[in-house]
Amino acid sequence: MERVCFLLKVRADRLDEYAERHAAVWPEMLEALSRTGWANYSLFLRDDGLLVGYFETDDLQAALDGMAATDVNARWQEQMAPFFESLDGRRPDEAFMTLREVFHLD
Amino acid sequence: MERVCFLLKVRADRLDEYAERHAAVWPEMLEALSRTGWANYSLFLRDDGLLVGYFETDDLQAALDGMAATDVNARWQEQMAPFFESLDGRRPDEAFMTLREVFHLD
Repeated sequence: MERVCFLLKVRADRLDEYAERHAAVWPEMLEALSRTGWANYSLFLRDDGLLVGYFETDDLQAALDGMAATDVNARWQEQMAPFFESLDGRRPDEAFMTLREVFHLD
Repeated sequence: MERVCFLLKVRADRLDEYAERHAAVWPEMLEALSRTGWANYSLFLRDDGLLVGYFETDDLQAALDGMAATDVNARWQEQMAPFFESLDGRRPDEAFMTLREVFHLD
């Protein structure tokens, strides 16, 4: 099992709306995440918009490819893109950078 | 169960040493973390030194207070303090700021 941490930057003027949208993620999106191997998935938001994602998966590439192949993800990411800074035309799920795990205790 | 995310900043010139130290955390420190309620605890490091911590606990304040009361934590934090930026004289475990959880999928 792989633990994945990634960072994105939400626009400072849209933090509340971002949080509201994520309190009501479409059931179809949740079902697609679970089906494609995203488990124990959380998003954390700092006051300045720094967004930290954490999830666990058996196969990161399969999880990314699996979601990328769904229609619901394309629709969701299209709606989320305007919330983020510095995506350079990429979708949020294409722009995220993962961090190196340096410690783990079960 | 509470999911906790916190951030710290490791000095850019000490990243490798920080990672090495965390590949060999003292068994006594690991035992104290488990005993005081820190579960599924990971640390992730970005190339510029941004450190993301994630753990799960039944009671965050009890987990913090429990570790703060141990001798091994005092020794560990004293050794770790020089690795961090901007602690303003506080120990690393006193300086961390937690982020708001805006989404979770089990």
